[in-house]
Amino acid sequence: MKKRQIIMVGFMQAQNCSNYPASWRHVESSTDFMTPHYYRRIARALEDGKFHFGFFDDRLALPDIFASDHSVALKHGIRVVKMDPIPILATMAMHTKHLGLAATLSTTYYGPYHIARTMMTLDHMCGGRAGWNVVTSLNDSEAFNMGAKETIQHDKRYDRADDMMRSVVDMWNAWQPDAIVCDKQTGLFADPTKVTRTEHNGEWFQTSGTFTVPPSPQGHPVIIQAGQSGRGKTFAAEWGEVIFTIQNDLDQAKKVRREMRREAEQLGRDPDTLAIAPAFYVTVGETQSIAEDKYAYIDSLAKPEDALVLLSEVLNFDFSRKQLDEPFSDDELDSINGLRGILDKVVRLSGKKNPSLADFLEHSGRGTVREAPHLVGDAKTIADTLEKWFVEGGADGYVMFAPHTPGAYEEFSRFVVPELQRRGVYHKDYKGTTLRENLGLSGYRTRA
Amino acid sequence: MKKRQIIMVGFMQAQNCSNYPASWRHVESSTDFMTPHYYRRIARALEDGKFHFGFFDDRLALPDIFASDHSVALKHGIRVVKMDPIPILATMAMHTKHLGLAATLSTTYYGPYHIARTMMTLDHMCGGRAGWNVVTSLNDSEAFNMGAKETIQHDKRYDRADDMMRSVVDMWNAWQPDAIVCDKQTGLFADPTKVTRTEHNGEWFQTSGTFTVPPSPQGHPVIIQAGQSGRGKTFAAEWGEVIFTIQNDLDQAKKVRREMRREAEQLGRDPDTLAIAPAFYVTVGETQSIAEDKYAYIDSLAKPEDALVLLSEVLNFDFSRKQLDEPFSDDELDSINGLRGILDKVVRLSGKKNPSLADFLEHSGRGTVREAPHLVGDAKTIADTLEKWFVEGGADGYVMFAPHTPGAYEEFSRFVVPELQRRGVYHKDYKGTTLRENLGLSGYRTRA
Repeated sequence: MKKRQIIMVGFMQAQNCSNYPASWRHVESSTDFMTPHYYRRIARALEDGKFHFGFFDDRLALPDIFASDHSVALKHGIRVVKMDPIPILATMAMHTKHLGLAATLSTTYYGPYHIARTMMTLDHMCGGRAGWNVVTSLNDSEAFNMGAKETIQHDKRYDRADDMMRSVVDMWNAWQPDAIVCDKQTGLFADPTKVTRTEHNGEWFQTSGTFTVPPSPQGHPVIIQAGQSGRGKTFAAEWGEVIFTIQNDLDQAKKVRREMRREAEQLGRDPDTLAIAPAFYVTVGETQSIAEDKYAYIDSLAKPEDALVLLSEVLNFDFSRKQLDEPFSDDELDSINGLRGILDKVVRLSGKKNPSLADFLEHSGRGTVREAPHLVGDAKTIADTLEKWFVEGGADGYVMFAPHTPGAYEEFSRFVVPELQRRGVYHKDYKGTTLRENLGLSGYRTRA
Repeated sequence: MKKRQIIMVGFMQAQNCSNYPASWRHVESSTDFMTPHYYRRIARALEDGKFHFGFFDDRLALPDIFASDHSVALKHGIRVVKMDPIPILATMAMHTKHLGLAATLSTTYYGPYHIARTMMTLDHMCGGRAGWNVVTSLNDSEAFNMGAKETIQHDKRYDRADDMMRSVVDMWNAWQPDAIVCDKQTGLFADPTKVTRTEHNGEWFQTSGTFTVPPSPQGHPVIIQAGQSGRGKTFAAEWGEVIFTIQNDLDQAKKVRREMRREAEQLGRDPDTLAIAPAFYVTVGETQSIAEDKYAYIDSLAKPEDALVLLSEVLNFDFSRKQLDEPFSDDELDSINGLRGILDKVVRLSGKKNPSLADFLEHSGRGTVREAPHLVGDAKTIADTLEKWFVEGGADGYVMFAPHTPGAYEEFSRFVVPELQRRGVYHKDYKGTTLRENLGLSGYRTRA
């Protein structure tokens, strides 16, 4: 039997900071975030650590729901630059050989042909190393930017995403891998019987045509998902190949992984075709005390505005309307149409049905490095946790959040990776040439 | 006064052939058109010849209007693979230093935020060398692929494109170039007074938000246009910085350039901020007779199906419905909703108000290397024409069509470019670092 190995994923942002908004204030952070050099350094750091892939988060607007204005976000640099991940990933592909490269693309505002084509093209340009992080878009700022009147209600967004997946997967499977003949002598380019016209009559998308990009070396891009709410979890169990979660302790992580695998099985999937990857911030140092000092410095970079602006963004609710100790009414909570996983977390951790603004700030951790578990320590301490969760069934791999870039990735690759390799839980080198091979995921989705 | 110099543009396809569909059958054509290596070779060939930029044509469907089926197109390889130009251009950017890189993106099926963001991101990734070829989409295959019921009627497509341009240019100008401060000490990231919210209330697009990508080193991507019909010409005169045309003789070219410059002037533009670039196929050889033999070989590669399939595609009319000598009725001609410039050309050259299928095949040249003027000869003969048109006011530069790839670009760079340089009408090297600097175009568009 093949030995399980940890899958490592780098969480990236095509913007002025990592997902920790204060990261740009870190003395070591690179400030050339609009150049290819910046992304090349990140790609190299991840590939040096044999990360399986890096993926770009995305949102289609800057945060301007707080106080109905963009000024606070701009002044403090709270995730205000948001570039298109696709050309950046192609750039990174040219400076790496093995690293997988994944983009977030929203099912809410793009159509299936565009997503199927741009992702499959990227997959060809990186020789079969691409992945698609399937998301739904959640706030009104994105809706207004994209020309809609308001965002789509939470469960409907997932209905649309489901319809999208069926259409995209059909397009990706339109050409059989051996359809192209390309015989200059006979003039036969492709066998038309091996290319299927796709007709899609879904609730959200009605398309008809023949897809225009044959399969990549790995068939099609790997599908990544991060749904945490009820409807989102079902979607992930149906479609996700790598599923990214945030879990605060091992017991919870084991429970979520067990449930997700069971749900996938009930949907007819082999549960070994999905990998569950909880997220961690990592701050590593030569010694425990150096790491703790580094963590204290990192944590000190956050400003209260960071949390307020990003809570408003992600919950699609203007937090400037609330006093610190004022509880949210039932109506206000019902109206929250954003990332409901965060709301659930605040209710659970505060123990209050109607949490206050202060509870949101304390328990969501939004905008701080306490948003996800933060591993702080020397290489051994960090490897202990990563090994334990992995061995005990809490994780198939991990998503690493970087408190600053590119330094945090470089440090993980130099400090932690050799320790994980020494313990035999992490690959010494990439096994194959495509992302799907390196992930050890057996199949890819055929016609939906 | 600055000496005028010829602007050279390479016309590229992200597919299995050049715009000459038979090109893949050429014994010298590369067949690895789904790999980055293929596009890297083309990029290198163009940069070796100091081409100002290369641009990808695009269409959002494979040709399946002829006989309402994709089989003929697939069998003969008639432009059936269509990849997304954006990730490919980013790939090419990593293998070049000076070559401009332009993408066709349709105003008919994308929204302004997506186009503004993906183009500006690409522009950053190539250090200010990007261009956008603004097109409207013309056939029902594209509409069906993109989830629409039918294509938009010709003039309305241009109304939509106008609305798009106003919105995109506004987004591109949202951040003043010096808005970002990025001061880690004070924590000031950007001056909010230097970033303007864009509110667009057009007939086609209503968006509201703050654009998320600051200006590139050249301000924003260069705008390229190819409108040939009445409404398209006005659009080009208003927005185009490089305007690509097809002209059959010098007199016609001079007239079109004069009119286009006058129309731009009437719209308040300095006519020197637009460059008119007629297209040529080029087949060059060591001697005139070698070139003629090469041309005969190239021409022999075309099949009758190529023309029928591509006429059906571009005119959005199924040519399998007509007998060879059967004239098109007035109703049929009125129903043609595609690239009307081709219809006008066939009517003009055939001298018939109601041309037949045979007339379309003969006079459109569609699907053959006779679609545009074809320069055949040794370097001197070809340079004679290019110099003459340029000096006499028929052109500011040229779009080169490649009868096969990458060989035809390489031959132009090796044979013709040194001859043009010797005559002092073509730059010996790139003058600046951005595409706009290299084109010698003064300004970029500010708020619309």
